[in-house]
Amino acid sequence: MKKKIVILGSTGSIGKQALTVVSDNVEKFELIGLSGWENINLLKEQIFKHKPKIAVVKNEYLAKKLKNSLSKHFNIKIMWGIRGLIELTTIEDTDLVVIAITGIASLIPTYEAIKKSKNIALASKESMVVAGEILTREAKSRNLNIIPIDSEHNAIFQCIGNERKENIAKIILTASGGSLYNLTESALNNVTVEEALNHPNWEMGEKITIDSATLMNKGLEVIEARWFFDIPVDKIEVIIHPQSYIHSMVKFIDGSIKAQISEHDMKLPIQYAMTYPERIKNNYPVIDLIKIKQLTFKSPNYKKFPCLKLAYKAIEIGGTMPAVLNAANEIAVNAFLNERIKIVEIPAIIQTTMKNHKVKTNPVIADIFDADYWARQEALALCVKNK
Amino acid sequence: MKKKIVILGSTGSIGKQALTVVSDNVEKFELIGLSGWENINLLKEQIFKHKPKIAVVKNEYLAKKLKNSLSKHFNIKIMWGIRGLIELTTIEDTDLVVIAITGIASLIPTYEAIKKSKNIALASKESMVVAGEILTREAKSRNLNIIPIDSEHNAIFQCIGNERKENIAKIILTASGGSLYNLTESALNNVTVEEALNHPNWEMGEKITIDSATLMNKGLEVIEARWFFDIPVDKIEVIIHPQSYIHSMVKFIDGSIKAQISEHDMKLPIQYAMTYPERIKNNYPVIDLIKIKQLTFKSPNYKKFPCLKLAYKAIEIGGTMPAVLNAANEIAVNAFLNERIKIVEIPAIIQTTMKNHKVKTNPVIADIFDADYWARQEALALCVKNK
Repeated sequence: MKKKIVILGSTGSIGKQALTVVSDNVEKFELIGLSGWENINLLKEQIFKHKPKIAVVKNEYLAKKLKNSLSKHFNIKIMWGIRGLIELTTIEDTDLVVIAITGIASLIPTYEAIKKSKNIALASKESMVVAGEILTREAKSRNLNIIPIDSEHNAIFQCIGNERKENIAKIILTASGGSLYNLTESALNNVTVEEALNHPNWEMGEKITIDSATLMNKGLEVIEARWFFDIPVDKIEVIIHPQSYIHSMVKFIDGSIKAQISEHDMKLPIQYAMTYPERIKNNYPVIDLIKIKQLTFKSPNYKKFPCLKLAYKAIEIGGTMPAVLNAANEIAVNAFLNERIKIVEIPAIIQTTMKNHKVKTNPVIADIFDADYWARQEALALCVKNK
Repeated sequence: MKKKIVILGSTGSIGKQALTVVSDNVEKFELIGLSGWENINLLKEQIFKHKPKIAVVKNEYLAKKLKNSLSKHFNIKIMWGIRGLIELTTIEDTDLVVIAITGIASLIPTYEAIKKSKNIALASKESMVVAGEILTREAKSRNLNIIPIDSEHNAIFQCIGNERKENIAKIILTASGGSLYNLTESALNNVTVEEALNHPNWEMGEKITIDSATLMNKGLEVIEARWFFDIPVDKIEVIIHPQSYIHSMVKFIDGSIKAQISEHDMKLPIQYAMTYPERIKNNYPVIDLIKIKQLTFKSPNYKKFPCLKLAYKAIEIGGTMPAVLNAANEIAVNAFLNERIKIVEIPAIIQTTMKNHKVKTNPVIADIFDADYWARQEALALCVKNK
């Protein structure tokens, strides 16, 4: 029996690779639906190739445009907007919903998919960061899997396997260190946008490359790990591993560590999340440790990169605070990318925003959106004031 | 309920550490019986401490000596010889038999324990090398676990966890490289016993330290892995990892590798084999990757160290050939330790012995002993002829 798949965000980097996994394994997967937001040319190509029953775009105008560009004999339902996404995630008979849209926008369809008892492969960082408490509680009560696609959490998921949760002593997230790890504090002070965007190991979007340089990316992953694996935050560690071949590790109570090692290729964790609990062969690049020669490790420098500590603080406080951290960070990173603040000012803006926030504990989804909105306003004001 | 344990070889290095695991966890384990062969002073101490119901020594004389040294009120049955060992492994109601006696002598009690449907934690290399085919077939037909204690195989056992066997692409055994790995071929030619016994990472017995230097130790482990994990030998690889912190790895069909990492402390795999499928806390040394800084990898040099290839050849041929490899190696190593041959002559002696052997396929236990006896005579003659 084929696994029936829905992909949200099929025109983005993760979504495209998820479709590659589908087309490399047509005997295993059937694509039921996809969403592509604005890039309707690519979406059209994907529709021709995979023949889904439903497609979702950003708005009515794009929906009509897409509809008109397809032959009348094409049997597909085209919807739009958040309502369209919700419909997409809640189609009957889907076995797995792959959520690969970025930003807090991913939260509503993720939440709705869980409420409809769908198993999820989750690439979107933000929904787990801002609302992990709610999402994992709802998933647990329905006995659902939320399988992480992000390579670090996917590695941890693999390392845990069928080990008992009580036997986990530490989750050890590996961090490349990003583009600026070896700079002195004074050099950090004068980093240009171009320098910060020059990631040592791979190319990614601008926002995540900056998050990688400030270590906030790892901080967000600490928060995600806390929820994905239902583990207290004091059992989550970060280690700098510049080669990024060990995608993360789990240490057990007896002192044994399991590490997951593979090439820098997102198709592997995407495929694993889609095939779990199975594995399937592929023709993706395979790691050769003899060529790589060495794997190295360093301690993270919390003083030079305070964002990581702020993330720990946000998840320790809990409630709406992680949503505030996430929103303030987005605004501050954007301000840096627009050369309105220095990179070293990012943590200060986040910290002040967090300080000014009145935390709501046991939040519902609406509280998360309120906190997100509030934090964006607050951080924006701070960015302006800073000038 | 306490796990009822029997330990064969309690006065050896592994056996002593297995007893430490017992005494560190008296609420988890009950020691039912032990064997100590010749060291009856230590055995007596162990009997006082753990109060087993049965103890086994080498012969009747030592049994009487031990009996007389214990108070008459001490409620213990003392036996001797192979028959005593068999009795020990087949006591009713034991949950796990730990086999930590070295040499081919371990084969009979291991075989008998399996025939009596005992789960086994196996430290003895030789029994799996010479008779893995028989032992694993008998264990499988009774649905028993043979859990490896050796750190490499224990690591693989952990990495496999509940992964499906069909999903394993490669077993990657790590090798320290031993004491001579970086020598040139001409320097190898003149290696002294003292140099060869100087292992870079830890102290072990003389025989295994030489096996480590010739890479035969890894060759024997390849053969063991073939049986422990029921995996074709062409799926078993060796990689040189001088720090020996990654104890071994498993690569899956999708390209993902799992590695098991821990300190150089045999108590961890011993404990894991004894507690499996559970894990328990301990106060054993814990690895710190930040202090270790780096893990490195190299390709094995088959030309400089032909023993590894001979082991692959022996298991490819199968039948009684691995027993011949093992026996010829024991004789040749002994000749080197007694300064009767050079270290580089070891592989030649093994190779000639293998060449002269008439392989018996589908051997029974008696065939294994015949081949072992024949190979020892043959190799001994070659060692003498060489002078």
